[in-house]
Formats: sequence, structure tokens, C-alpha cells
Amino acid sequence: MKNKLICLILLAFSLNLQAENGHSLWLRAKSSGTVNIVCAKSSLTLAIAKQELEQGWLGQNGAKIVLTVKKDKAIENDGYKLSENEIQANTELGILYGVYELLRRQQTGEAIIQNEICNPSYQRRILNHWDNLDGTVERGYAGLSIFWHDEEKGYAVTDKDRALWTEYARANSSIGINGAVLNNVNSSKLMLTSECLEKVKAIAEVLRPYGIKTYLSVKFSSPSLIGGLQTSDPLNPEVIKWWKEKANEIYNIIPDFGGFLIKANSEGQPGPQDFGRTHADGANMLADAVKPFGGIIMWRAFVYEANSNDRACQAYKEFMPLDGQFRDNVIIQVKNGPVDFQPREPFTPLFGAMKKTSVMPELQITQEYLGHSVQLVYLATMWEEFLKSDTYQEGNGSTVARTTDGSIFPQKYTAIAGVANIGLDSNWCGHHFAQANWYAFGRMAWNNQLTSEQIADEWLKLTFSAKDEKTTTFHAADWQKNFLVPVKQLMMESREAAVNYSMPLGLHHIFAGLNNTHYGPGPWFAPKGIRKDWTPAYYHKADSLGIGFDRTSKGSDAVSQYHEPLKSLFNNVETCPELYLLWFHHLPWDYKMKNGRILWDELCYTYDKGVNEVRQFQKTWDKVEPYVDVQRFSEVQSKLRRQCRDAQVWKDGCLLYFQQFSKRPIPFDIERPVYDLNYLQKTDLTDMLK
Amino acid sequence: MKNKLICLILLAFSLNLQAENGHSLWLRAKSSGTVNIVCAKSSLTLAIAKQELEQGWLGQNGAKIVLTVKKDKAIENDGYKLSENEIQANTELGILYGVYELLRRQQTGEAIIQNEICNPSYQRRILNHWDNLDGTVERGYAGLSIFWHDEEKGYAVTDKDRALWTEYARANSSIGINGAVLNNVNSSKLMLTSECLEKVKAIAEVLRPYGIKTYLSVKFSSPSLIGGLQTSDPLNPEVIKWWKEKANEIYNIIPDFGGFLIKANSEGQPGPQDFGRTHADGANMLADAVKPFGGIIMWRAFVYEANSNDRACQAYKEFMPLDGQFRDNVIIQVKNGPVDFQPREPFTPLFGAMKKTSVMPELQITQEYLGHSVQLVYLATMWEEFLKSDTYQEGNGSTVARTTDGSIFPQKYTAIAGVANIGLDSNWCGHHFAQANWYAFGRMAWNNQLTSEQIADEWLKLTFSAKDEKTTTFHAADWQKNFLVPVKQLMMESREAAVNYSMPLGLHHIFAGLNNTHYGPGPWFAPKGIRKDWTPAYYHKADSLGIGFDRTSKGSDAVSQYHEPLKSLFNNVETCPELYLLWFHHLPWDYKMKNGRILWDELCYTYDKGVNEVRQFQKTWDKVEPYVDVQRFSEVQSKLRRQCRDAQVWKDGCLLYFQQFSKRPIPFDIERPVYDLNYLQKTDLTDMLK
Repeated sequence: MKNKLICLILLAFSLNLQAENGHSLWLRAKSSGTVNIVCAKSSLTLAIAKQELEQGWLGQNGAKIVLTVKKDKAIENDGYKLSENEIQANTELGILYGVYELLRRQQTGEAIIQNEICNPSYQRRILNHWDNLDGTVERGYAGLSIFWHDEEKGYAVTDKDRALWTEYARANSSIGINGAVLNNVNSSKLMLTSECLEKVKAIAEVLRPYGIKTYLSVKFSSPSLIGGLQTSDPLNPEVIKWWKEKANEIYNIIPDFGGFLIKANSEGQPGPQDFGRTHADGANMLADAVKPFGGIIMWRAFVYEANSNDRACQAYKEFMPLDGQFRDNVIIQVKNGPVDFQPREPFTPLFGAMKKTSVMPELQITQEYLGHSVQLVYLATMWEEFLKSDTYQEGNGSTVARTTDGSIFPQKYTAIAGVANIGLDSNWCGHHFAQANWYAFGRMAWNNQLTSEQIADEWLKLTFSAKDEKTTTFHAADWQKNFLVPVKQLMMESREAAVNYSMPLGLHHIFAGLNNTHYGPGPWFAPKGIRKDWTPAYYHKADSLGIGFDRTSKGSDAVSQYHEPLKSLFNNVETCPELYLLWFHHLPWDYKMKNGRILWDELCYTYDKGVNEVRQFQKTWDKVEPYVDVQRFSEVQSKLRRQCRDAQVWKDGCLLYFQQFSKRPIPFDIERPVYDLNYLQKTDLTDMLK
Repeated sequence: MKNKLICLILLAFSLNLQAENGHSLWLRAKSSGTVNIVCAKSSLTLAIAKQELEQGWLGQNGAKIVLTVKKDKAIENDGYKLSENEIQANTELGILYGVYELLRRQQTGEAIIQNEICNPSYQRRILNHWDNLDGTVERGYAGLSIFWHDEEKGYAVTDKDRALWTEYARANSSIGINGAVLNNVNSSKLMLTSECLEKVKAIAEVLRPYGIKTYLSVKFSSPSLIGGLQTSDPLNPEVIKWWKEKANEIYNIIPDFGGFLIKANSEGQPGPQDFGRTHADGANMLADAVKPFGGIIMWRAFVYEANSNDRACQAYKEFMPLDGQFRDNVIIQVKNGPVDFQPREPFTPLFGAMKKTSVMPELQITQEYLGHSVQLVYLATMWEEFLKSDTYQEGNGSTVARTTDGSIFPQKYTAIAGVANIGLDSNWCGHHFAQANWYAFGRMAWNNQLTSEQIADEWLKLTFSAKDEKTTTFHAADWQKNFLVPVKQLMMESREAAVNYSMPLGLHHIFAGLNNTHYGPGPWFAPKGIRKDWTPAYYHKADSLGIGFDRTSKGSDAVSQYHEPLKSLFNNVETCPELYLLWFHHLPWDYKMKNGRILWDELCYTYDKGVNEVRQFQKTWDKVEPYVDVQRFSEVQSKLRRQCRDAQVWKDGCLLYFQQFSKRPIPFDIERPVYDLNYLQKTDLTDMLK
């Protein structure tokens, strides 16, 4: 077994030497000399650590490095103490993390301070794979699942699978990710069958040496769906017993199994409310089942009702009354924003508000609402904005980060989840720059104080600075000036550009409804009979008087879910940040913005600005051609071209649609639309001009 | 008969009062008072003249106007003498032309000088309809034929047909057009059958009162195809007899029949060379057949050979040796440029060179190579450039206009032809602004010294100034400043913009080959086995060294077909106008332009300029919204949007294709391409994003 795994690990290394199709991710350093490793212990994990050092060592040739597994109070969890020639950790995994950090600093040139302690912000740093058992990936834009294939072929595992999972595990481990939910939150009932669990066991075995625990999404109604029971009522003794036995079965074959992720009573998924029980009843029953094995339950707060007048209020309304009722191994998993992973949302008000319950943020790495794997959108700026948002729940500085990482509330478990953007595409993520979002999630999960700019800097150095046939002749200073600086700027501006050309000023969820792609613009989408909260008009509320969702105290009163001073700040149009203006306010078309423009004009200028920002990105990228290998250069160039076309479609579609209400001209210093509204209204942008 | 025609004429007037779909063309003046018409004679044509005066009179209320048919030596042909209250002419048609001119001046506010003589530049001012007998129109972008319907339905003529033909005749007559070739130069053999000629008779009867003669395109092999003869050899007595009898038959039913238009030994059409005879043999035989009836033969010089190394030289090579051999009722019909109606060509060198033969220009009103009826391209600037080109054949000032209108050479017949852009579309031409090209052709055919700007001015005033519900409140000065001036400027710049974004600097015929649409870019088009001269590479000759067709004395020597000083001017790269640079020269990518840029950069900037010009047109048009009725405004706006998208495709396709040879970056102050070359290479732009 051990030998087989080492073989796989070696295979993973050799795969990294393939052509520049992006498969090597940020792991492309090749050692420039030898290193003398001293380590008293041995294990699979330590073997990996040693191999990484040997393969990637860029320090002094022949230098000595000591790896010491030894308890130290200052080191928490799988953290480590780093010096130029020593890594000390409480755990073997801590050593591996330290090795990755050391190699990263060698490659990026970042300073290594003697005895620097690096501890993780969250104990559990988890990818959520929305992978279906048939191999498709919900909201996946990088090919089919790396874990699951066509169900008809069963759950066979090949050496090729194991090799790929090893690469996956290595990549995750290198950025501190230590958990993976292997299947979609819209779970298949088959997930908990014994055949399926056998495959999970095989995956877990590959992931384990890299310190990655496996988790599963499960259907709350599993007892009746596959267990032969009449009910799945969480208070029913048979149901309780069934789950305990199932937990036992799982832990028997996967001793380090992480736990369950549950989407319950949400978008048609079954849950405890089907039986008149609360979320707490449901979550606690499952928590009791896994508790003996150290498992946790991640219970999602993504809930909304068809007839609610404001979907954004729902999670708070349902979960706040349950605060304090959950077991200590239940964590409520809350999306960053109260609607749904939009390009820009204020933070969900549950953060900081649930003081007696563990809460974990759920971020979306896959770009469901941010341009799929077509558009270059670096998400870390959005996550930084979110994590640093002050909830004021425990005074100034009660940031989302601090309310979730244990700094403020004594959570037994701290965790953070990111919905993965990984698939079978040769470059893993569909877009070369989407790798940066995977990378950034891991880095921010490890250290929620890192800035998005630092992470972009690191990622670019690791991903694009490796020498190849084209870059061998460049000096570092030239590369920094002509590649690193402009491309980092592009990344840093990319999310704001996407907001500008898609839904600026607090607009949200005005996506195309056709085929439910969430790709192009669709503020007009409203087929007969559809739920109101599934139409963009529910969110933008454009009419002859104005535009925006009134969430003030005179409207849906969503503002009241925020702690003062935010409540008043958002409630008052004079103080509400203009970034969130139309999220909280319905305003007349001629509302005067702070810059003196009227709202309609500002909307026009902002959409136009977004288009021009993408054009600028194209120029930036075209200029760095000498610094990038041919394949990645041209693939990114091609995607940026399409992004530019699609940004134009967003601008045209939204401005022409809203113009029907505003009845005002698009300011004449702005480029005119190039599409007719009626054309865009009947076109699916994901198919258009591929 | 006479009553029926008058009824149709009245019907035509009432049709003009329809909604603003553009059907009324430039004929929308409604009289503001009464006029007292004095006319000693009466006829169908004079009845029309009187009716036009009554319907459109904008002069002094109750004023007297005298219409006098009286010979006057100063008045030529169907010219007229115009005063504020009198029109004198040699012919009744001259009176009608004078009436249209008087009404036009009343409407545009142009001065009416006492006893001003207005004579036509060309005797025959002819539309060529490339209409097929099945109702389709070759290179027609305005719906099906107004003359021909589905052949299977036979040649029945309805009152609706006659009403439309009456409107057509009126529109033509109002701008001086006096002839129409009713069918495609790629003629059907059925054209000369008796059934078909009966329909021609019906059309001729409707057109006659408006002074419009009918002509037909005929297949040179008609004697064998429909006459039962073994040959169509023009020197064969049976063939000669057949044509004489056919002419007799035609003139028997259409006494004012104009004559034949022949496309012979061109693009697969039969001709005298099939029998070892010359163009002169063929043309003269036909000329003899129609001569007794006053008919003419228009013989096209549009010939080229599969294996020629320079298609542009062919017409001159074939026809110059025949100069002097043609009957006096043969006119050689020569396209303005030596290749084929390209966005920009130097004039065909036959003009002025054939000194002993009548030569007539053939212009293309339908926008085969200039954006179909999608793009707003005002062609009169191109025609003006052409007509004013100096051939130098008889010294300075031997312009194409003067070498063809009888000023220099004593042609018995002078004529000019324009390939029509007319179809069943409610606005006749597909694009509202394509009407301006029909209008301009007529006006220039009447007076080849008119400037394109004067004509644009006239046309805009006639077509857009009529009061409607939106414009009633505007004062003329406001309209002039805010509508006339900017829209005229748009028109005047439109052809140069089209050249810029499609084939600048002398590039030509680099159109998409897919489906033979001649719409989008296709410099790459080269399917296996195709004739070389049907591929764009034959014309652009791009390679690693440079781009352009070497037609200098060291190349194909096409320059030698031009009279000095043009020959030397074109031959020398230093003196060759840059507009024609790549027409005459193959130049290195880094060739230094007069502005200091290298050729590649100049190409990039010029394509980009073209795109930005269309964007500017969009702004211009959007600003005039208050001055235009809703339907025409939005239809033109929509077409401009597509033009902008398509200009972008042209720029991207050409620059990315040529960049493969130039290996140089697109200058970085230019917006980057938004399409990938391989996408455009497999896409038919006529279908894309309709």
C-alpha cells in the first residue's frame, strides 16, 4: 500500500513536467541544487515533505534542513515554526505545510524570518465539490468531475484516477486545504450506499498522506430513500439508529472521515421541516451520529421561500431563533452574501449575529455568477472585502473573519468552505487565471489576514515565472516590471470590472434565465408562471420611477438585520455606500450621485467603464506575450477577447433594457450599443459567439 | 388604357401617404397651396406633370405656371428651361423633368434662376436590374424582384404589380432615369420567349408615360437555346435572321424598346468567342438587328480569364484591339474599376482609351461589396471620385465624365448604367439610406458635374424634412444644424469609413468566400481546387515579406494601360497615391508611409479608424432621434449597430490574418481584436449575429 502511494506520488511529480498546458498549477519549481534533510521520523506524509524539498529546493546548494515534529504551545493545530534551515511542527502535516511555505518563499524571494510561527486561521479549510455521481459538475466550467464518472460504469477506480487525485491532493496541501466534500450539495441518494462509500474510501486513501480529510454531502431523507425506513424524521428512533449505523459503517472504512455537509429544506431538498422539525433538530441528530468519531456537521443556511418579499432576509429569519440550540460539532455554513454568490453583495447578517453557534463562511470559487471559466475574474479581492467587513457585533473590528475564526466567539470548530472550480480540463480550472482563485481560497483559509494583492503576487510568481524556452533570457527585474506589475494590476481590477459591466451600484441577480446558465444579462427574464424570486425584476425592480430594491425600514427592512451603525448607515441613502446603493434603495432615475451625475447617467458610465476595463486587460495581456509560453498566452488572450465581447453584451443588454424605464438617452460621450435589445433577449450568451 | 394608367398613377400617389416605412422615398412633399397650370398640350406624360405640380406645389399660393413644349436649340434631348413660373422643353418628358426639378427646388429652398437651361449629361440613364425570372435578385438585398415572380406562376400581371411599377417609374422619372434593363445580365434563356415578352410589354406600358424605356439582358446563345438553331455563331445567316426577327417581334409590341444588354464570354456566359468570333462580331450583329428601330446594344467589358496573372488587365487587353470596329449603336459598358465594384479602385483604363468606340460607365448601386443593405454607405462620393478621375487621354481634364458624355469624343449615343438596389422591401432598398444611392445615381446620370455633397443635401431635405407628428415643432434652422449638417457629414464620410474597416490602402477583393456573399472578410479563403483569381490571396498577395499586388512595370504592368502621367505616377511607389498603394505595389511590412508610420502599423490604425468612424456614425444618428420618425430612426439605428459589429469583425479578421505574415504586434494604443481568427475563418458573417 505504502509503496503504491509513493509510486503515485512520483507519478504526480512526473506529470508536472508536461507541456505548458497549465496542468502544473503553481507547482513548477525545480530544484537548483541538493539539500541535506534531517528528520528523525518517517511516515508517508514526511516522505512527501522530503520529496518536495528535494524536487523544489532553491536554497543554498547542499544546505541542511531539519524537520522536527515536536509539540510547542505557540504552534496551533497543523501550524509550524519556520526558519531558513528548520521546520518544527506539532504534527507531520504541519511539517509538510512548513515545507511548502519554505519552498514558496524560496521561489518568490519572500523573506524567511527565524522562528516565525505560522498558524492557520481556520481549523478546517474545505473544498466543496458540487460533483454529481454521473460525472457532471453543477456550476462546473472545467470539464467533468475528477472523482466521479458515468454511474453506469460503476465506481471502479483506476491508476489514472489515483494519479490525478494525488496531484489534486498535492496542490491542495501546498496551499493548506485539508478537507474535501466529494459530492454535490444537491446530493444523490446513492451517495451513502456501500458501493459508493467504497469509492470514497479509495479516494480518502489517496488524499490522506496529504492531510486532506474527505467529507460527503448527504440527502437528509437517506433513511427512507435507501434505508428502507418509512420516515426520515430526525426525532424518530429508527432514523437516529440508521444514521448512527451509517456513521459507524463509514468510519469503519474511513477512520479520518470529516463529516457531512447538508443542504436541507432549500431549493427542493428534503430536510427536518418536512417533518415539522427545526434545522437544529435535524443537524443535532446527525451531529450525535458522527460525534463519537470526531466528525462534524456543516449545515447550510442557504434557504429562501417562494413567497418571501425579500429573499435576502430569509436565512437570518430562520436561523437566528435557533442560535444556541446546535451541538458543538455543528457548524452553520453561510454564504458570504445574503442572496447568492453575486458579483457584489454586503455580507450575510448572520455573521457575528449568531453568537452561540459555530458559523463558517461558504465562498464560491467556481465562477457561477462571475463569468464561468470564460472571464478573467480574480475573486480574492471580493473575499478580502467580505472577510474584512466589520459586523460591529462585538464592537469595532468585529470583522467577518474574526467572528468566524474563533478570535471573538469560542467555537469548538472553526472552518471555511469554498465551492471548487476543478474539473478534468488539462488546466484543472478551465481558465488559467481561475487557478488563482483556487490558490487564493487556500491561502486565505490558512491566513484570513492575507491581502488579495499579496496572494496575487505569490501566485503570479509561482505560476508564470518558471523558466521555459521563452523566459530563460529574462532578468527578474525586467519580468517584475513588464509582467508581474501589470498582470497583478489586471487581476486586482478584474472583479471590479466584472461588477461594472454586469451589475454595478448594488444591482444583483439580473442574469439570463434561459437555460439557467447565470452567464449573460437577463434583466428582462420573466417567463409565465415562474416564481417571482427567480426573475431578475424581483431584484432590480426597475420601473418608470426608478430602480433598486428598497431594503430600508420603509421597504423589506433587511437593514434591521445588521448591527448598528450599519443598520442606519445602509438605511440612509445619504450614507449608504454607493457600491450597495441599489441593493438597499429604490431610487429615481435622476437621483443625484455623489459625483454630481444622475443615477441613470452613472449607470451608463459604469457599464461603459466595465467594457473599457476589459479592453485595457486585453492590452495588458497582449503586451506580456514575450513573458508567457505560447499556449497559455494564446488561451488567455482568446478568453479575454470573448470576455470583451460579452462585457459589451452585458452593457448593451442592461442599458437598453433599463432605458425602456428611464426614458433617457445614453450620454453621448459613451459608445453606443452595438446589439439590439430584442436580439439579446432571445439569445443565450453561453452559446453566442463561442 | 389611358384611363387605367391615370388610375394607377393616382393609386401611386395615395400609396405615398402610408406610414413612415420609407416607401415614399424622396417624394413626400405635399402641396401647401394651389397652382394655376397653363399647358396647351395634353398627354399622359403632361397629365403626370400637372398632377405632380398640384400635389407637390410649395410655391406661391395661386401662382401661375406655364408648361411649354417648344423646340429650343439650347435645350438638348429631354432637357428643359426653368423659370419660377415657366418650364419649357423640346419634349413632353422634358416638361416632366422640369416639373420635378421645380418642385425639388421649392422643397429644398434652392434658388430658381430665370431661364436656367438644364440638359442631361447622358442621353441614356439606365438602371440595370439583376432580377431573375424566378423573382430572386442577384446581389439584391431588398427582397424579391418587383418585376418577376416565381416562374411557376407564369408571367401574370396584377393591378398591384402595375401600381408598384408606377411608383417605381415615378421615382425614377423624378431623378431623370429613363431606362431600365428588366433582368439579370446572367440572363435566362426564357427572356426572349413570347410569353415573357408579353410581360415586358405590360411593364413597358406602365413605364412609358414616365419616359422610361425598357431594355433586356439576353443570352447570346438564344438562337440555339430557344430558336431551334444549331448554332449561335454571329456570322451565321440563320442566326442573323433569327435575331432580326426577334427584334421585329419585340418592337412590334414595344415600339420604344431600348435595346439589349449583353454579358458575353464572361463568367461562363456564352458569347461570340465560343464560335471563334470577336466581341465586335457579336455586338455588331445584334446592333444591326435593332438599328432599324433605333435600338442600342450595350456590350459589357467585364471579362477575365482563369489563368491570367492579373485580372485587372483583361478588359483592356480584349477590347482595345477592337476600338473602331463597333457599330455606332453599340456602347461598351465598362465597370468603374478594373476588378469588380470594389470599395475603392482606380478607374478602368478603357475609359478615354477607346477613342473610336462609344463607352458607358457601369456603376453598382446595390452594395454587393459595400455592406449589402446592412451598412450605411453613401456611394456618390465614390462615383464622384470616379467620374472626376482624369484619364489624361486627351490632355488635362479628360475626366472619365468627359470621355463618356460626348464632351470629348463624338459618340452617337451616350449612356450610363447603375445596377439597381431595388426590391419588394417596403422601403425599396433594404436600408433607408440605400435610397440615397438610387437617388444619387439618377442625379449624377443627369448631371455628372453635381457633387456628392450637393446630392446628399438634396436627398436629406427631400427624404427627412417632411413634417410628421414629431417634426412639426421644429424650425428649419434647428433642423439644418442638428440634423442636416451632422447626417450629411455621416453620409459623406461613410464610404471612406467602409474602405477603412474593410480594405484600405488599395487592398481589394479580400471578401469572405463562404457562400459567395461578398459580405464579411475572408483574406484567408482558399478552398482546394478553386480558381486562383477567385481567392483573396490572388489580390492581397500577403507573405512574410509584405503585402500588395505588384502591378508596376516590374509586375503585371497594369500601369502601362494608363496614359501618362498616370502610368509613371502609379508605377513609382513614391508618387503613387496611398489610397491605391497596395493596388499597384507589393511592399514590405515596414515600408515607411508618408506620415512616418510603417505600413503594418498604418494598416492597423486604418482598420481601427474605420471601426471608430462607425461608432461615431452611431452617435450622430442617436443624437438626431428627435428629428426622425420612430420607425426609420430605429431601423437605421439597428443597422448601424450591426455595421459596428461587422466593422469590428472586418478589423479583427484582416489584422489577425495579415499578422500571421507581418509577425508584428498591433500597436498597443489600438483596441485589441475581440474575435479569434479561427472563429472568424469558419463563420459566415451574413449569418452571424443577424
